[in-house]
Amino acid sequence: MATGTLPSVVNRCRTFLTLFLLIYPSPSHCQQFIIPFKEPKDCGVEEFFDISSLSCVKCGSNQRRSPTGLSCICQTGYQALPTDKSSINCQKCSTDKPAVTSDGFGCISCPGSLSDEGKCRCPQGNILGKLLQTGLMLFKCERCQASFTNTSCVCSPPNVQVSLVSIRIIHRCFVFVVCIQVFSNLTACQALGNMCVMNMHSFSAMSTDACGLFNTIFRSRAALSSTQDISYWRVNLPWLYYGDEPGLAIRVLQTNPVPIGFSFRGKNKNTEIKLIAAVYNVRGEFLRWQKIRGRSLQLCPDTAKRQEAAFSFGTAYREISELLEMYPEPLFYDVFMDLGDGDNRKLLPLPTLVSNQQYNGKFINQESMKNWYLSRRMFLVDTLSGREKPTQPKIPLSTALFVHKTSIITTFAVEYEMDQNEARMKTDTALGVMGGVAVLCSLLKTVSWKRRIASPLIDAKTMFTFLLFYAGDLANVFFVVTVGTGLYWLIFYKAQQFVYVLLPLPAQEEQFVTYIGCAFALKAVQFLHKLTLQLSVDVFLIDWERPRNKATTGEMKHDPSPVSIWRTYFVANEWNEIQTIRKISPTFQIMAVLFFLEVLGFSNLALRDPLTTLERSPQAYTPSYSLILRYGLAATLWLCIGFLQVIFFTVFYECFVEDKIRQFVDLCSVSNISVLLLSHRCFGYYIHGRSVHGHADTNMEEMNNNLKREGESLVAQRGLLPNTDIQTFQVSINNRLRSQYERIREPLSRRNRPSRLIDASSANQFEQSTRAYNTMNHFLRSVIDHVYPDMDYIVRDKLMFERVIGMEFLEPNEKSIFYNDDAHSFSNVLFYGNEVTLLIFDTLFFCVVDLGSQSFVLAAVLTYLQQMIFRLIRHSLGRRNLSNKTLVDERFLI
Amino acid sequence: MATGTLPSVVNRCRTFLTLFLLIYPSPSHCQQFIIPFKEPKDCGVEEFFDISSLSCVKCGSNQRRSPTGLSCICQTGYQALPTDKSSINCQKCSTDKPAVTSDGFGCISCPGSLSDEGKCRCPQGNILGKLLQTGLMLFKCERCQASFTNTSCVCSPPNVQVSLVSIRIIHRCFVFVVCIQVFSNLTACQALGNMCVMNMHSFSAMSTDACGLFNTIFRSRAALSSTQDISYWRVNLPWLYYGDEPGLAIRVLQTNPVPIGFSFRGKNKNTEIKLIAAVYNVRGEFLRWQKIRGRSLQLCPDTAKRQEAAFSFGTAYREISELLEMYPEPLFYDVFMDLGDGDNRKLLPLPTLVSNQQYNGKFINQESMKNWYLSRRMFLVDTLSGREKPTQPKIPLSTALFVHKTSIITTFAVEYEMDQNEARMKTDTALGVMGGVAVLCSLLKTVSWKRRIASPLIDAKTMFTFLLFYAGDLANVFFVVTVGTGLYWLIFYKAQQFVYVLLPLPAQEEQFVTYIGCAFALKAVQFLHKLTLQLSVDVFLIDWERPRNKATTGEMKHDPSPVSIWRTYFVANEWNEIQTIRKISPTFQIMAVLFFLEVLGFSNLALRDPLTTLERSPQAYTPSYSLILRYGLAATLWLCIGFLQVIFFTVFYECFVEDKIRQFVDLCSVSNISVLLLSHRCFGYYIHGRSVHGHADTNMEEMNNNLKREGESLVAQRGLLPNTDIQTFQVSINNRLRSQYERIREPLSRRNRPSRLIDASSANQFEQSTRAYNTMNHFLRSVIDHVYPDMDYIVRDKLMFERVIGMEFLEPNEKSIFYNDDAHSFSNVLFYGNEVTLLIFDTLFFCVVDLGSQSFVLAAVLTYLQQMIFRLIRHSLGRRNLSNKTLVDERFLI
Repeated sequence: MATGTLPSVVNRCRTFLTLFLLIYPSPSHCQQFIIPFKEPKDCGVEEFFDISSLSCVKCGSNQRRSPTGLSCICQTGYQALPTDKSSINCQKCSTDKPAVTSDGFGCISCPGSLSDEGKCRCPQGNILGKLLQTGLMLFKCERCQASFTNTSCVCSPPNVQVSLVSIRIIHRCFVFVVCIQVFSNLTACQALGNMCVMNMHSFSAMSTDACGLFNTIFRSRAALSSTQDISYWRVNLPWLYYGDEPGLAIRVLQTNPVPIGFSFRGKNKNTEIKLIAAVYNVRGEFLRWQKIRGRSLQLCPDTAKRQEAAFSFGTAYREISELLEMYPEPLFYDVFMDLGDGDNRKLLPLPTLVSNQQYNGKFINQESMKNWYLSRRMFLVDTLSGREKPTQPKIPLSTALFVHKTSIITTFAVEYEMDQNEARMKTDTALGVMGGVAVLCSLLKTVSWKRRIASPLIDAKTMFTFLLFYAGDLANVFFVVTVGTGLYWLIFYKAQQFVYVLLPLPAQEEQFVTYIGCAFALKAVQFLHKLTLQLSVDVFLIDWERPRNKATTGEMKHDPSPVSIWRTYFVANEWNEIQTIRKISPTFQIMAVLFFLEVLGFSNLALRDPLTTLERSPQAYTPSYSLILRYGLAATLWLCIGFLQVIFFTVFYECFVEDKIRQFVDLCSVSNISVLLLSHRCFGYYIHGRSVHGHADTNMEEMNNNLKREGESLVAQRGLLPNTDIQTFQVSINNRLRSQYERIREPLSRRNRPSRLIDASSANQFEQSTRAYNTMNHFLRSVIDHVYPDMDYIVRDKLMFERVIGMEFLEPNEKSIFYNDDAHSFSNVLFYGNEVTLLIFDTLFFCVVDLGSQSFVLAAVLTYLQQMIFRLIRHSLGRRNLSNKTLVDERFLI
Repeated sequence: MATGTLPSVVNRCRTFLTLFLLIYPSPSHCQQFIIPFKEPKDCGVEEFFDISSLSCVKCGSNQRRSPTGLSCICQTGYQALPTDKSSINCQKCSTDKPAVTSDGFGCISCPGSLSDEGKCRCPQGNILGKLLQTGLMLFKCERCQASFTNTSCVCSPPNVQVSLVSIRIIHRCFVFVVCIQVFSNLTACQALGNMCVMNMHSFSAMSTDACGLFNTIFRSRAALSSTQDISYWRVNLPWLYYGDEPGLAIRVLQTNPVPIGFSFRGKNKNTEIKLIAAVYNVRGEFLRWQKIRGRSLQLCPDTAKRQEAAFSFGTAYREISELLEMYPEPLFYDVFMDLGDGDNRKLLPLPTLVSNQQYNGKFINQESMKNWYLSRRMFLVDTLSGREKPTQPKIPLSTALFVHKTSIITTFAVEYEMDQNEARMKTDTALGVMGGVAVLCSLLKTVSWKRRIASPLIDAKTMFTFLLFYAGDLANVFFVVTVGTGLYWLIFYKAQQFVYVLLPLPAQEEQFVTYIGCAFALKAVQFLHKLTLQLSVDVFLIDWERPRNKATTGEMKHDPSPVSIWRTYFVANEWNEIQTIRKISPTFQIMAVLFFLEVLGFSNLALRDPLTTLERSPQAYTPSYSLILRYGLAATLWLCIGFLQVIFFTVFYECFVEDKIRQFVDLCSVSNISVLLLSHRCFGYYIHGRSVHGHADTNMEEMNNNLKREGESLVAQRGLLPNTDIQTFQVSINNRLRSQYERIREPLSRRNRPSRLIDASSANQFEQSTRAYNTMNHFLRSVIDHVYPDMDYIVRDKLMFERVIGMEFLEPNEKSIFYNDDAHSFSNVLFYGNEVTLLIFDTLFFCVVDLGSQSFVLAAVLTYLQQMIFRLIRHSLGRRNLSNKTLVDERFLI
């Protein structure tokens, strides 16, 4: 304004005002700035309501409260005498002129009797025309102009009423003069303050702008006592600024908590933020005390119910809309928090931050908090100062005015902020500690892996493998920390009765999202690593069946009654089928999570408000989602349902319906086929499937008989060792055995694509691989039968500690070691044995998609696709590997 | 009112007003009631705007338009003379008193000069005090009262201003008298009309209520010409009623279409319903022409953007909220449709239906349309007549007043209705015709079924089976009709450019929903029927393998090298696995549908508005869903995605990845095992699996050799007949064969639970069934080998017509008939061959759940569960049946 150009309405509407509240769990500190609540009607008969200090002030002598209560008037029978101050003096009328004129400034004698108010009572049909004949009217108009209180006063020519609307320097100076000197006028000072507020509280070294003038008066009043004991609030002036001491903002905002405790539930439930504002119009008149609720401060139109949500504590609120409606002249609000407390009602003045506030042309409030200049008094839309011509006085100011046709976006937001540094430090500490443990864990895994591949050298591959293990462990650390944090917020924010934590703001969530991203990326690395290992595992199916003509022992000779390959086909086919089964039903998992989130409405728990209801009416305000809560909710739900599924499948389904893994072991036993799985060079699993009946390659009658005999325990037990029934082992084989194994397998590994080579390859290679198969079968059968003393093995139990850390202490130097393994840990080379990894991977996949898209349905669909694709990859590549390693034609793996 | 009790505000707010618009695709008819649009400013200098007829009317002589334009005043230099009519007479002032007083009723001489308006120009500092000294003021107050135009007129005692607010009989009569006799006053007549409107247009035989008085005047003006040539609109009166002739409402509402064509898209896009209203206040003053848009008529608070949607043609709009705000005094609206047309702007008066309108205490408008009494003029909230005491005149009427604290629900809705009888008739016709075809179809199926079970008798079971078939066919009819209808609405409503169809209202959708319910129930019956049939199909696996010791032919002797049962196990196991495979992936289906509906936003297409955008901003108004559109959308999407999946799986996947059905046939061939499936007593399917190599029970080397030889076409073809490769047949067996089959199977059918009996049953029964198995194997092998002349068979092609109608013409009397069947139609006893039924059942299940819950996610979850449950049932019971029929132990069916 000082520069001569008027800021347009557009600029003004983009002002961001911030109200501050400081909430502490226990209101222990003493609050400095608390004022008692007074209304005009609270003031006594001889008091008036001082609109500057918002308190009751005593009238002068012979005076009483005016009907509005905002000023004093003379008592009955007293005429008013104008003074050079804002107050009046009252002087008793003489007895010959006992009546007071209707404006109170003259004494007259009455033609009739006197009324109770000391005015003349006119005879019927007469009016007090006389009054109008005096020069008082002119006088009144002058007063009217001077005190700037009454625009309804009509002046006769040539006295032109001065419009307040055209805010020009001359008027500002005029108000300034009225405020400081002539009358020390209350409304004039408020009006000057309002002009400063409309100027965004900005001022510069030039002192001709409204705020400069205000500050001049402010400084000149320093000697006088301040209003309500608040040093920033000078007598007769509005309170516009907090001081300009450096760091004051931090002190004001972070030192003194609001003496109110909020509670989300229980019988002391208290979530309403009670704000109250003293409302002034642009002319500086005090209009009313107004409760700030619903649409009071909101320009964005919406239903009352939704707008009320803005003042419900803990609800993140944001409404954005175009400013295209008509607005009346601006009102000015001094906002207080209503502390209640019965008759002794107290108010807490709330500081305001005007982002557009300038000092010497510099935006001082857009920097860090320690440079902030807090202020008070705010307005919403400036429909006045942008206008170029003074409006005709005839048009009442309250007429609605169109704002410019430019599209203006207005935002009303309520945000709750808490210092999250402590929480962040705790998170980081947990990450650090657990990351350290993860290093140890990964080292252990690497050592174990080194032993299992029987390689003592520490080479690049070792380092790489260590990193892969570390990726998995670190992913788990990130996962645990993030889920823990999410769950913490979910429980502590949503379930707290008395409010002591507030959600992190979206900006504060960034680090958390980064952690989730890390967890997902690392988990994906681990998952792909495991997948690769599973797709290259060594499998061989050892057929124990011997031809019926028992006299013949030479294997290579063509037997008249060959051993049927169909049992091998059957076992391979089943192995192929169990490759991708899991401990849970992944699709059911997705559906169940979706059901809870989208149908039962659990997703509403992730909204940024303290409500714990699952159902929201479409009319109610819907806050934005908290990413942390969304993640915590989705991950927890996913893990819980997964856990319940695992329990259901392992406890109920596999016991009473079917257990695919056990079925496979049984099938091995019935079909007289053993399975050797080498997941590492010198480590693997062995399923002992030697039939207890000697033969399995027989007709239905004998098969049924065999089963029946076994059911009646008429035969030996199935175990590898006599009189045991342990069929599954972890095996640590020694180097000799492995070398021999590889020597035999050499022709097989050269044969890469068996299914195609059958059609058009040299018969030579084909025969070679068949021979290799027979040799391998014979060799492994012999090994199990302890035929070769240099490749012998022992069977022992694994130590508890060995189980726990997943490492074998004994090295299989002389003899290979078969560890009894009741737990079917051969499923480690299947999806089945890696359920935890898969579940966490799915959880993270689901959550990452959801965080990116904010759509649980999309997350569910993509997770399904992800599962399907990896299942397809695992299945088809696993089938090819199986076919390569066991020589069973892929066409039988259906 | 006539009864002395005032209806409370609460009752009044529940009034339902209905505005009617009749839209025809081609505005061909002549519209009777169209009036030109005139505003006060449109009237000439010597015309005034007649607020009753809303047209310009010429002033009397020596008169000109008043500044408001709503009445005439005397020309400059003329004084007004009051008359007993609403108009004035003007008389020239004499030359000695050339100036007119400021109220225009007197001539005076001026102390100064004369102004342009013929008034005195006062010297500076003087005012026209003189005027006030005359008795004119009293006169003015009397006029003021009488003409009821000016409440700001302040009367001196004892003239008490009469408040309009307290509507009592005396005032009504007063207005009545003013309207009819004294002044024939325009505003008084409007005020009387407004009282009638506030009384809900209700009147009774007693003529003392406002509407009764109105009608008295109305009848008395019958002789005068009517306003704007509309006979229901009499001179100087507001238009409140359409006539009371029976059936007038139907004529008015259904005969004359609005001469405006709406268009949803294209460059002539026109969806805005332009309404305009003449607004009167309760005192009968014309306030303005007001465009009805946004929040004009809506009490429910909401954002402007949402409220605008109410006036977008084709958008079903409904807002419900509590009426808890403050409302000013009621305004009265005469609503017109703005027909536009440039300068020659035309208006179409819209009829109103007041549900609460009473005649002699009876609610006449809550019955059928032919008894309706249409009316005009409406108001929103009556804040006046419910008040018990007349308000103090000092409080301006425009002050906002609280309505009673009772919770009042207010609804603002825009609905579009079209006569759906034609559409319904078409639907019913289609249902009738197709239902007839369905009967024929079902009869044919029953006949075919009778032949296949070789039963010529028509018994209760035949009737029952007919009904089952009919259920399926009728379900298809309902499905086709409902999907067709849904798709019709989806396409024709959403895609129409010029509007010619409107959606059925929710009430009109009931029949449609019933049809869907029928379709689902009948489809469920068909599905369960098919499921039952599949679960009881006869299967036998014929093993062609003979023992290696070729000299031995006696089957019952114990052979030293028995034929291995593992090939049979393998085949049975595979058959078990393909029982529940389908031509599509059902879970992918659900996920894809969910993706389209919920993620891509296709569900927005089912909203009751003409928009075809998939994305809606959360700020925009969301209309309710149309059930028909929802169904049409979901079913179409489901069928389309299903169809695409079928195409993908049959054209791409089964050709290039794997075809489980063909794999099974190949497996039969490779394993030397044939499959005989008898779905009916004398009808079934045969898969010829005799190995072309003679033996399949061999080692890997020979198996691979065999495969290689076959790949190089060095062996015979696999077909049943020499030199053919057709392996799959439909078989019609004759009674002799069937009887023999059953005789052999007798011991098997006695053996009900094979898996348990193994453990603890008499060996006798067990042996019996094994013997039965061997006998059956031998018997069927012999039959296929043409060993028994009386149970011989022939192989032929099925006629095209036989294929089409699904029935065999030849009866297998002498010989059984094997029909070549390339199409693998044995999959009819699997889920695979019944994809259409399953797909339609799933579609209907999904849609029915969605219609019930309006949640696609819930529908998806439940559809998944349904599929899972039925798959489990089919799988486990099918497995048991397979085990029973083939004697393969359930433990091998894994």
